[in-house]
Amino acid sequence: MADNEKALKLHEEWQGKIETTSKCRIKTREDLALAYTPGVAEPCKVIAENQDAVYTYTSKANTVAVVSDGSAVLGLGNIGAYAAMPVMEGKAALFKEFGNVNAVPLCLDTHDTEEIIETVIRIAPAFGGINLEDISAPRCFEIETRLKEALDIPVFHDDQHGTAIVVLAGIMNGLRLTGKKKEDCQVVVNGAGSAGVAITRLLLNYGFRHVTMCDRFGIISKNYPNLNWMQEKMTKYTNLENKEGTLADALKGADVFVGVSAPGIVTAEMVASMNKDAIMFAMANPVPEIMPDIARAAGARVVGTGRSDFPNQINNVTAFPGIFKGALEGRARQITEEMKLAAAAALAGLVSDEELSEDFIMPDPFDPRIVDVVSKAVKDHITK
Amino acid sequence: MADNEKALKLHEEWQGKIETTSKCRIKTREDLALAYTPGVAEPCKVIAENQDAVYTYTSKANTVAVVSDGSAVLGLGNIGAYAAMPVMEGKAALFKEFGNVNAVPLCLDTHDTEEIIETVIRIAPAFGGINLEDISAPRCFEIETRLKEALDIPVFHDDQHGTAIVVLAGIMNGLRLTGKKKEDCQVVVNGAGSAGVAITRLLLNYGFRHVTMCDRFGIISKNYPNLNWMQEKMTKYTNLENKEGTLADALKGADVFVGVSAPGIVTAEMVASMNKDAIMFAMANPVPEIMPDIARAAGARVVGTGRSDFPNQINNVTAFPGIFKGALEGRARQITEEMKLAAAAALAGLVSDEELSEDFIMPDPFDPRIVDVVSKAVKDHITK
Repeated sequence: MADNEKALKLHEEWQGKIETTSKCRIKTREDLALAYTPGVAEPCKVIAENQDAVYTYTSKANTVAVVSDGSAVLGLGNIGAYAAMPVMEGKAALFKEFGNVNAVPLCLDTHDTEEIIETVIRIAPAFGGINLEDISAPRCFEIETRLKEALDIPVFHDDQHGTAIVVLAGIMNGLRLTGKKKEDCQVVVNGAGSAGVAITRLLLNYGFRHVTMCDRFGIISKNYPNLNWMQEKMTKYTNLENKEGTLADALKGADVFVGVSAPGIVTAEMVASMNKDAIMFAMANPVPEIMPDIARAAGARVVGTGRSDFPNQINNVTAFPGIFKGALEGRARQITEEMKLAAAAALAGLVSDEELSEDFIMPDPFDPRIVDVVSKAVKDHITK
Repeated sequence: MADNEKALKLHEEWQGKIETTSKCRIKTREDLALAYTPGVAEPCKVIAENQDAVYTYTSKANTVAVVSDGSAVLGLGNIGAYAAMPVMEGKAALFKEFGNVNAVPLCLDTHDTEEIIETVIRIAPAFGGINLEDISAPRCFEIETRLKEALDIPVFHDDQHGTAIVVLAGIMNGLRLTGKKKEDCQVVVNGAGSAGVAITRLLLNYGFRHVTMCDRFGIISKNYPNLNWMQEKMTKYTNLENKEGTLADALKGADVFVGVSAPGIVTAEMVASMNKDAIMFAMANPVPEIMPDIARAAGARVVGTGRSDFPNQINNVTAFPGIFKGALEGRARQITEEMKLAAAAALAGLVSDEELSEDFIMPDPFDPRIVDVVSKAVKDHITK
């Protein structure tokens, strides 16, 4: 059976990849009286007196909502709330399997920014964190920013920050391997949607100075037409020489390429025009911006993709379960830049000097140490 | 340890009475590729083509949202969304334990009728049904009615209909035992909130002709002041002689008393004024309208309460898990009056002629047959 047929058949067998399970035995009248009425009135009264006690007595302490409007799902685009359900359920399953965090898929039947914001605010009492997922740019930026202001629980758009953290971890190890200095590197980020913007911001916060963003029409500069408000904002911090031109122009002399864009748009010639020991993360799915063997042959030293069948996979599952586990355990009110940088460093640090090589930049996603080191890094950087 | 201390301690140990659990193994890269990307794209594409396939490939088919705004929680009143969480989690645990239905507690941080309605509409894609819980009257009537109109999944306010179904089952068996005829019975329902109204409506739909509602100030009649719109509406179908007076007046010559009101407000004298073989359900919690021994001594033949330590407990857990199980399995779009009447009859029918007695009107809540007969009754009465 082909893999896609197998996946479809399995989804039919599962009829839902997650379920809710009772943690309390209810087999007798006494059980019922303790878990439900009249016993349940006791924690209710305590929480009514002191709202914070909701973390002591309920699942809020360890439960995340996985919220999407289905407007930018995987490579499928705007398929809507219903069709997005298998992805959000999958995410919820990964939260539990990798991070032991409970997660509830919530697919919202609206694409309106204000409606999404107010809906998430209203459902927040039951949740210790909000994982936004597959919401299209630039709406995702406003939705996340406004929710972070409105809520006292962490709000995290994984397509942005999860990706950025894992890419930064890969780049950190690329620098370790090649001896390049972040301050001196020329970085090109191709793709100016949610992931591209977040990667760029995190790289700048980490200390990169020379980052140029491109989209399908070329280098983003101050005079570039039709920028959205976030891309406009990014022109203050990127491409400081205000270059214009194509992706090929941007790549000349570049040290690092990060692609969150489209299959096959980087050629061997472009790679050959990059600096020595170039580091490339070509993450278009399922077909990368350039195939690793071609990039390596053209002179790139390190090549990572989004795929598990090539070396150096950039996979968000190495970040978000630990990020939320740490944030929930530490009762963080926000997931800050410091926490993201610490998570990336922790992830990168799992690759020892002995292991580090062109083909081993990233820890294996199933490395059981990941969730512990990432969650610890996050917890250690909570500002109260 | 006192029971309330024990309940509090257990809630702290549980730190959440429910959790989410993955139904799919994710231990290898292949597992990940099937349950998440790229395999998950297959069910997404099928659902994008045909929205109905969401029931085949996701947990929507067997998942209910337990929605409350915390405005009318147990005997605690308006304690808000956070303090209501232990109750909604308990309800979710009961859904799973008794009905094998997944349930997600959603406590909404708003008391505004319109906001509650629009929020539930927006979160509906992930759920196969909506269980409304502990929302104060009369807002609960409008919220439920409007949501039933707006959504194509069952919406069920358990405080209303779950209670009404179980009370009707008890009354059905009370009639069986006493030989009273529903057409001839004088029924008094004391309490004109969500449960009182719903019980009255279901009794009328079952075929009772003479139902009088009372509230704390006495008999509700057409000229009664300060009725809400639902109570006003009920005056068209109840107290057809338009009597005025007190609860004591109402009970003179009555055959059936249903109390969803306040502790100790029914006296032995009032019971003595009722018809022979009176049937009483005194469900104020934790202290009933009249204690069963006093009521029996004063002449009542059958007395039920909400308590598990007295005979004939009226417990919603005998209804809602089976109601939703049947509605979900049969893909019902609504839970109709026919389904409720059938569920009550099924529940009553579990008490055999041999078992039926003054002290055995209701099946034991832990009777394992309940969920099957109730869900079957509901399924058999779905109109497509």
